[in-house]
Amino acid sequence: MGGNGNPVVRRVCVRAPASIANLGAGFDVLAMAIEGFYDEVKVSISEGNGHVEVESTGFNIPSRGNLACAIAEEFLNRYKIDGIDVKIVLHKGIPPARGLGSSGASCVATLYALSRIFSINLSLSEFLELAGLCESFVAGSQHYDNVSASTLGGVVIVDRIRLGAYKIVPPVDIHVAVLMPSEKFVSKYPRKTAFARDILPKQIDLRTLVDQNSAVAKLVYALMSGNLEVLGEAVSTDFVAEPRRSTLIPLYWELKRAALENGALGFNIAGAGPSVFALCRSIEDATRVSEALRGIAERNGIETEAIVTQIAREGVRIVECS
Amino acid sequence: MGGNGNPVVRRVCVRAPASIANLGAGFDVLAMAIEGFYDEVKVSISEGNGHVEVESTGFNIPSRGNLACAIAEEFLNRYKIDGIDVKIVLHKGIPPARGLGSSGASCVATLYALSRIFSINLSLSEFLELAGLCESFVAGSQHYDNVSASTLGGVVIVDRIRLGAYKIVPPVDIHVAVLMPSEKFVSKYPRKTAFARDILPKQIDLRTLVDQNSAVAKLVYALMSGNLEVLGEAVSTDFVAEPRRSTLIPLYWELKRAALENGALGFNIAGAGPSVFALCRSIEDATRVSEALRGIAERNGIETEAIVTQIAREGVRIVECS
Repeated sequence: MGGNGNPVVRRVCVRAPASIANLGAGFDVLAMAIEGFYDEVKVSISEGNGHVEVESTGFNIPSRGNLACAIAEEFLNRYKIDGIDVKIVLHKGIPPARGLGSSGASCVATLYALSRIFSINLSLSEFLELAGLCESFVAGSQHYDNVSASTLGGVVIVDRIRLGAYKIVPPVDIHVAVLMPSEKFVSKYPRKTAFARDILPKQIDLRTLVDQNSAVAKLVYALMSGNLEVLGEAVSTDFVAEPRRSTLIPLYWELKRAALENGALGFNIAGAGPSVFALCRSIEDATRVSEALRGIAERNGIETEAIVTQIAREGVRIVECS
Repeated sequence: MGGNGNPVVRRVCVRAPASIANLGAGFDVLAMAIEGFYDEVKVSISEGNGHVEVESTGFNIPSRGNLACAIAEEFLNRYKIDGIDVKIVLHKGIPPARGLGSSGASCVATLYALSRIFSINLSLSEFLELAGLCESFVAGSQHYDNVSASTLGGVVIVDRIRLGAYKIVPPVDIHVAVLMPSEKFVSKYPRKTAFARDILPKQIDLRTLVDQNSAVAKLVYALMSGNLEVLGEAVSTDFVAEPRRSTLIPLYWELKRAALENGALGFNIAGAGPSVFALCRSIEDATRVSEALRGIAERNGIETEAIVTQIAREGVRIVECS
């Protein structure tokens, strides 16, 4: 039965992966979908009068469910869908406020479910525009890197000239170690993403622009060619965001040094932080690196969780409803 | 016989292709070697006392031969080569001061011939460092895009973190139409490259940096995947150099519009200008585009030459001495 008591006429379940945006020098441009964390939504519709109801489970955040509600209302309005009630059950499997694209994945999963349940065929550009709008409800500004990665999977390049994205699936296996501070740590920093944007430089000199362009070009080249050494060096390089945002992450440079000393190919901040990640050649390397990182945090009294995962080759998709 | 009358002990002939640097948004980062124009050197050595003699033929420029002489002296000095005279015959087949990497090709050809004749095995990084130094003797500043393309062929990404370059050979044929102003036109602008650098903005805002990074990433993606439509759009895009440098090129926006209307995939400035180029899907498209461009210049009383060519897949190489 729908939330209104009317019979459910259709039901769709969808899953969207977590993602690491601002990959290396690719601030707002490059993002990588990762396995291991997903947001899932079950959307059902019934006869009604445009009411949207959201229930949410999993990681608890103040705004939990708000995104899904806001984007569903926007969706119904934009596509002039009438006489239907929508019930959304959102399971937040991606820890929020860690820099792992949690809100982006909620937006992508909800939007994809809506487009399927109403059989509305959105172009990638239309889809990303709506997903970016959805994210802006919490992030303050519109950005398309996390939502593009959650949508397409792989590593994505955001096309800012025409709104779009290109998907790269590296021809080699790449393993990822992620170190996430605990909820207690991140709860001290509300408006984290907006703050991490505010501390970026407003003006960049021409030399830095060229260096940043070179690092981005190198990263795309390495991802597409599968050259792991070049990849590691490129993903470790950022002249714009890392120098500023690293100041918000305790022990950042010590963690980076330890990751590289333990065999990581490259290391950088996940999204706007505070999580950090390392790319590694093997699952053994990634395990060793993640243990080294967690050890440093622990010795310094910072509660963290470390995971070992890999690039998610698939993006958002329909799953069987449980 | 060597220049000193002593018998020649070794002789090497080398050819290096022209190149188009600052490809799209890739200022100082992306460059493309092209067929159709080459600089060639014949280097011979004989017993002597370190004397370097340069003779030059082909396109006439004031500094013709100076580069070859300066880099040869630097080379002998750096590698402590003693008791040898060097004779260099430089044939300048690349029109100078057009934005086609003429000085870069002279440097690369000379340096490659020297490294081979003295059997000195330079790493790519060492080679590029010397070639960039050689170019700085005329360009004023050190940049590595033209010399990297002339050295490796294909399209190159300059790695500015560690001095190096990565070669991309697109998996599809790409045809190039180039429109070059006459010698009379370019002779009015001495210090052209330095001036074209001076008019670039010194500071770039963060939004523009992100847009530029996106355009560079898209260009590398398109070149490696062979997606011609994305390639055309990416190569036409530049938020930093084109807006300023286009003001130095008469009829620039009219030429760009005509190229795109005549079926070019993309259009931009070659190097620091004043030549312009279009990427095209076929030789027929490139021919039509080059005729349209030349027609516009002619109707406006500007003497130009238009050529149709393609990416040079090979870079600098030994050739048979004629």
